[in-house]
Formats: sequence, C-alpha cells, structure tokens
Amino acid sequence: MTDTSTNVTAILADFVLNSRFENIPEDVKLESARTLLNWMGVAIGGCKHESVEIVLKTMGLRTEVGRASILGRKEQTDGLNAALINGISSHVFDFDDTHLATAIHPAGPIAAAILPIAEKRQISGAEFLHAIILGIDVTCRLGQSVSPDHYSVGWHISGTAGIFGAAAAASRLLGNNPQQTRWAMGLAATQSSGMREMFGSMCKSFHVGNAAKNGLMSAMLASNGFTSSEQGIEAKRGWANVTSTKQDYSFITEGLGEKFLISENSYKPFASGVVVHPAIDGCSQLRDEYGFKPNDVESINLKVNPLVMELTGKESPSTGLEGKFSIYHACAIAIQHGKGGENEFSDAAVNDPIAVSLRQRVKPEIDPTVPADAMGITINTKDGRTFKKYIKKALGSLENPISDAQMDDKTRDLCRPMLGDAGTERLIETCRNAANLANAADIATVATP
Amino acid sequence: MTDTSTNVTAILADFVLNSRFENIPEDVKLESARTLLNWMGVAIGGCKHESVEIVLKTMGLRTEVGRASILGRKEQTDGLNAALINGISSHVFDFDDTHLATAIHPAGPIAAAILPIAEKRQISGAEFLHAIILGIDVTCRLGQSVSPDHYSVGWHISGTAGIFGAAAAASRLLGNNPQQTRWAMGLAATQSSGMREMFGSMCKSFHVGNAAKNGLMSAMLASNGFTSSEQGIEAKRGWANVTSTKQDYSFITEGLGEKFLISENSYKPFASGVVVHPAIDGCSQLRDEYGFKPNDVESINLKVNPLVMELTGKESPSTGLEGKFSIYHACAIAIQHGKGGENEFSDAAVNDPIAVSLRQRVKPEIDPTVPADAMGITINTKDGRTFKKYIKKALGSLENPISDAQMDDKTRDLCRPMLGDAGTERLIETCRNAANLANAADIATVATP
Repeated sequence: MTDTSTNVTAILADFVLNSRFENIPEDVKLESARTLLNWMGVAIGGCKHESVEIVLKTMGLRTEVGRASILGRKEQTDGLNAALINGISSHVFDFDDTHLATAIHPAGPIAAAILPIAEKRQISGAEFLHAIILGIDVTCRLGQSVSPDHYSVGWHISGTAGIFGAAAAASRLLGNNPQQTRWAMGLAATQSSGMREMFGSMCKSFHVGNAAKNGLMSAMLASNGFTSSEQGIEAKRGWANVTSTKQDYSFITEGLGEKFLISENSYKPFASGVVVHPAIDGCSQLRDEYGFKPNDVESINLKVNPLVMELTGKESPSTGLEGKFSIYHACAIAIQHGKGGENEFSDAAVNDPIAVSLRQRVKPEIDPTVPADAMGITINTKDGRTFKKYIKKALGSLENPISDAQMDDKTRDLCRPMLGDAGTERLIETCRNAANLANAADIATVATP
Repeated sequence: MTDTSTNVTAILADFVLNSRFENIPEDVKLESARTLLNWMGVAIGGCKHESVEIVLKTMGLRTEVGRASILGRKEQTDGLNAALINGISSHVFDFDDTHLATAIHPAGPIAAAILPIAEKRQISGAEFLHAIILGIDVTCRLGQSVSPDHYSVGWHISGTAGIFGAAAAASRLLGNNPQQTRWAMGLAATQSSGMREMFGSMCKSFHVGNAAKNGLMSAMLASNGFTSSEQGIEAKRGWANVTSTKQDYSFITEGLGEKFLISENSYKPFASGVVVHPAIDGCSQLRDEYGFKPNDVESINLKVNPLVMELTGKESPSTGLEGKFSIYHACAIAIQHGKGGENEFSDAAVNDPIAVSLRQRVKPEIDPTVPADAMGITINTKDGRTFKKYIKKALGSLENPISDAQMDDKTRDLCRPMLGDAGTERLIETCRNAANLANAADIATVATP
C-alpha cells in the first residue's frame, strides 16, 4: 500500500525554485493571465457573500492593523487573513477554474496565498504569474498522483492538495532555499485538511481559503527556520500514504518543467454544476439561432446521462443554490436569458414566474448511451416547429474553452457591482497585461474599489 | 467500514452545553486544577524554545495589536496566535500531560484555546476548569472511539482529536447554542490535521498549537453564523470514517457525564520518553536509599522489554533531544542527579563527563517477560555491593501518580527562570485555587512576568 520509493518532495521543491520564466512556453504564460483574470472575477463577485462577511467579522476583530487587500472591498486586513478571505470569496459561487482530471479548483489556494506577498514585497507581474503557474503545477500533479482514491475517501482535494501549491508558490516568492521549501511542503502536508462531508455548507469555500492561508503560513514559518519533515509527501506516514490508497508519483515527475498542468485548466461560463452546462449551452444556442421566446416553447426534451438526473434532478428549486443543481432551471434560464451567470442563479431568478413556467416544460429522458458531459436537446414550439442540437462538448470544456471575450463578459457581470464599469475594464486590462507589470501589487490595487 | 448509526456530534454538543459544574465530582474538579498547573508549568518552561521564537517572529509581524497573554513572556498577541503559541510551548518539551489509553496530550489544545477567551470576557475560575474538564472529555472519548487505528494510520492524535475538545470548550465559554456548537465541531472536523511523520521536527508541538488555534477559530466562526455539517464526526464521509478504520462510538456515549476521562490523565515526573521512566524512577530510588555516588558504580544491569531498546536504544546521545530517547542516559542522570527534569535532558547534561562515564556502565538485557512499563534494575558497586529494584509501575503512571508536592517541584524547575521564585509560588497557588477565582484572567496574569 505504501510507496516511499521516490523523493518527490525534494523534486518538487527543486522544480519550483529552479524554474525560469523565460523557459515557460508562451501559451502557458497566456493561460496564467486567463487563470488570474477568471479568479479575480469570481473573487470580486463573491466578496459580499455571507461567508465572507462572517469571516471578516470574526477575524477582523483580531487584526486591528493590516495592509493586505480584500478583493472587491475597501477593508484591509493582515496577509494571512486576506489569503483566507480571498480564497473563500473566489470559491463561494463554485464559479472558479477547474482542473477537470482531478476536480481541483487550483487558482484559489495559490493566487490568494501569494497576492499578500506581492503587496508587501516588490514582485514583478512576470514573477507573480510564474508563481501561479508553478503552484498550480504542484497542486494538480500531486492531485493526480492520488486521484481518484483520495477524493473517494472523502477529502476535498481543492483544499487538501491546494495547500501544497500555495506553500510552494509562496516559498518561491519569499526566497526560501531548497530545505526551507521542503519544510514548507511538510508544514503543508501536516495541515492538509477539508472533507467533502462539508459540501452544501460554508465550509466548502472555507477549505479553499484555509489552504491559501495555511500554505502561506507554511512558507512564512519555513523561511524563519521552523522545521518539518523533508519528505512530507512520500514518507511512509506522509500525506500520500495517509490520505490515499493510490500513490502514482509518475504523475508528479513525468514531464516536470515541460508540460504545465495550468494548460488543462478550464473556466466555467455558467455558474452551476458542470453536468448541466451542455443544457445551458445548447438551449442558449437554439434561442439565439431561431429567436423564439419563452412563451413560444411547448416542450424541451432532453436525452441525458443517468448521472445528470442523479446530481441535478431537482424539479422545483426554491433558492439560487438549489437552482445550480437543477437541470430544469438550467434549461429555463438559458431560454429566458441566453446565459447562465451568477445572476441567473440568484434566488430572484429561480423564483421568476417565467423561469418557473419554463421549468415545467422540461422533459429529461435518461439515455445511458449519452456521455455525462454531452446532451441531446429537442425544443418544440407551440406553432409546431422543432429545433434540435446535440452538445458533445459544452462551452467551457477543455475541448471548447470560453473565448477571451466571453471571459471578459463573465468578469464584467461579476465585478461591475463592486468596481463599477471603468474599474472593471481596468481590472481586465491589468490582468491580461500582468506579465508586463513592474509591480504585481498593481493587481491588488485595481481589484479594490 | 463506515458507522453512521449514531448522532454523536449532537450528543457531544448537548453534553458540553448542558453540563453543570455542581454536578462534577470533587475528585474530577481537583484533577482539573492539577491538569491546569501541570500544563502551565510546561508551557512556561518551554516559552523560550526556538519553536516558540520562530512562530512569534512569524506571526507577530502580522498582528501588531493584541491583548492575549503568551505564557511565561512579556509580549502579547491576538487570541488566535496566543492559542497557537501557548499550545506549542506546552508540548515542546514532551513533558505535558498524557491520557495513556490514547496517547493524547489533552491539556494543550484545550487550555490554550480557552485562555484567550478568559482574558477577553469575564469567566470565573470554576467555569474555566469546567471547560477544561469537558474539552478533555470530548477529546479523549473521541480519541478512544477511533483508537488505535487512527494513530496507526499515521495521525498525530493529540492534534487531530485535540481540536474537537478545543472547539467544544470554546463553544461553551463563548455561549454558542447547540447548532452553533455542532457547526464548531464540524469546522473542527474539517480542519483536523497533523501527521506522525513530523515527529522529531518542530511540527510535533505545532500540531498541538494548531489544534488550539483552529479549535478556537471554529467556535468563533460558528458563533458568528458560519455553517458546517452538523454531523462532522459520524457522517459517512465525516472525521471518524475518513481518518480511521475503527469507529466505536460507545466510547463516546457510555457514561457520558458520569465518568470524566480527565481522571485518567497522567503527569510526567521525567522529561523523557515514557518507556525509560521506570529506569529513572528505580535508579533515583536506589541512589537515595543507599547513598552511593556516580564514581562508586561498577555497573547498572537492566532487564527490559524489547520495546525499550527499540525506542530508546541510543548508547551515545549528543543532544538533549537524543538523551530523551536513551535508556543509557536515563540511568546516568538518575544516579548523578536523583531526578530527570528538563535540566537533566539539556545538551549540557548529556555532554557532562560524569553522565557520559555512567552511561558506559549501563548494560540493558532484553527480557520479553518484563512488561513495557516495568523494569528490573541491579546496580553493582566497585566495593562489591549489589542493590536491586523491580519497578512495576513507575512514578507518573496512573497507578503511581506524582504527588502534589512533586508536581509543585516540577513546576518550580520549569517556571523559576521565567517568573522568579515568588512569581512561581503565586502561579502554583493560583492554579491550585482556580475553582474559587472570580476571574479566570488572573491565571494568565500570574503566568506572565
């Protein structure tokens, strides 16, 4: 059961410290700016969520002094609590980036951990993006080495693996030496936590914030000489063996420095569970192509994988959160609004009479031959027309990623209420141009009102 | 493998909130003052350890303002970081209390979590001791329900189970309602962490501090409405099932409120691994009874369980830490000094020529018929005399606990360098009299210079 044959903690520490930005492929660099922008959007959009308010109230009392930014807000706090809060707000809508092979949402733990460092020290935009690339690589490689067993046991992998990338990226930006970086990884291993049992409660996004905060703290403690095991990942009683029945370290070592897993990062166009994305994509497309109105629709017939009904079979959702897991609501808002952002999954949108009425005309039929990420859609209108669409790979999938323009629109929807129109354009431009910034602290500046 | 038949999270939350101090047996109340005093001594003794200095340096930068005490020191910090630091310092010498059935060191996570609450709010000494009793009960019952499997997998149970007692005790003192207390337990479950792989590094005591800090944070967040699973312990993917192959909840429910596991708490008289305690006890007794000097000793012959040599077989330790795990050094300092406190396990004591010379005369012989907690000792002097002692239950074991006078002496050894003679006597008196204090904040006051 235990594999202690490799020395992956040291391998990853050396990789993170020795990587050079000029050797990173151009498409990977571009992807890191996309990841950054997508993350900023969801974090700013989520910054007034109740979870965030409670954490700020709780921790703010403890930290009367601080100079780290809270995305989307005017308050400041200390670096560790900023990492916690920005990590929470970026995951609270479940609208952040996804590494599909592991189900990890990687930007949150890593970007939230290093932003306070950029605000405290002089870090260039290139160094900042580079740290994001490396942190995501560490987290996703580690996640793959224990997937899917680790997740099946009950661990929320975005938190449990996220903390390692946070510790690694922060170690690099703090100038930790190789031993300090191995200690930071050990400190991360011994703080790795977060269970799937908490899904449905505020703890889900708390895991992401906690990974950011504790990963940053790991790197800070190690930089001051706090010791740990130097084989926190692979030791007999290290993280991989204690938390998973599978350890395949070839996912960590193979192609390290050549292939960067941020290239496999995906960004949701729709603020809902991923299995209903083909429905929103297909219904929106048919609406735009044929111009019918909600009142014209007689029925919406779907052919879906059994998993879709298992996960999103809720016929009559009453809250926005329930709407995110309703195939009925997904079709309704796509036909009503032509999109599925956070606004279309608000409590108000779920209780809108037009959406309620459309939901009742959705007829899903289970078809095991339809893959879980595909869907067959047939819309019949009252005047007897029939429109069909088979979605093989929905918008936002790795094969059909959202365009830069679509990501900008998503960012606008999320950020305008917090930053205003001009402020949102400034944020978009700054993130897209991040590789050329002399000072990455500018990213935090444009992300606050 | 999974047992979800009981609702132990709710049972424990109700128990903690409904318990009344007047119903606690007198011997349990007395034990709580002993636990408090023993914990104070080791925390104050450890307050200048390098681990503490590093954490203070790291976290102090973040929290310029704060009013919670750091035991033994003049600096103050915020409540969460005080919980972290006081938890670390109390475990850094491995000289704190032990619940032998689970190997949990229970005072650290719980007392360190609630002391900052006592400094912020008006809590009586009785309420403070009561919270310690209940927190230790929660932690040790939970630990027993998953022992020994949980520890065998690789979890450091003082941290992983300690956080629940910290969250429960803090919930009570913060006035959390039952649902908030269940949330706090869920927040504790999803932050439970700490691996045995880290033993030998600073992370070992970090686990105890982290359990205190994160347990306190769990209770604080829950009190402000941060939601979690309400079945964090027993759910299908809850703490017990995810981290252990054994779940026997009868250890949680049986005798709850009648039997208090703090009564099974033990206090080390010697600052070393527990398997060498019979050697220190026996050699000290023979020295005191027969008055021989180090130079009189020809040989020290031992009959020991195989485990003793496996864990403490180091013949020539060169540091204090190595000395703690050397049966040779244990006999040497017992004959040289007649005791085995932290001073006898310093680097200087390990390199003292008298101790080095005595070590070379120790001859352990493995005898599987000798239990692991017993030892046969035969000392031959150069003038031909022979002294024998068989230690069945060493001083500090449950069957042979240290006396109040011995605990006071241990406290004096640890605290006089930090608090002075008069200050140390004040600490001893305040802890022993804690049940009658109008304000438990006095405990923190007398524990700082």
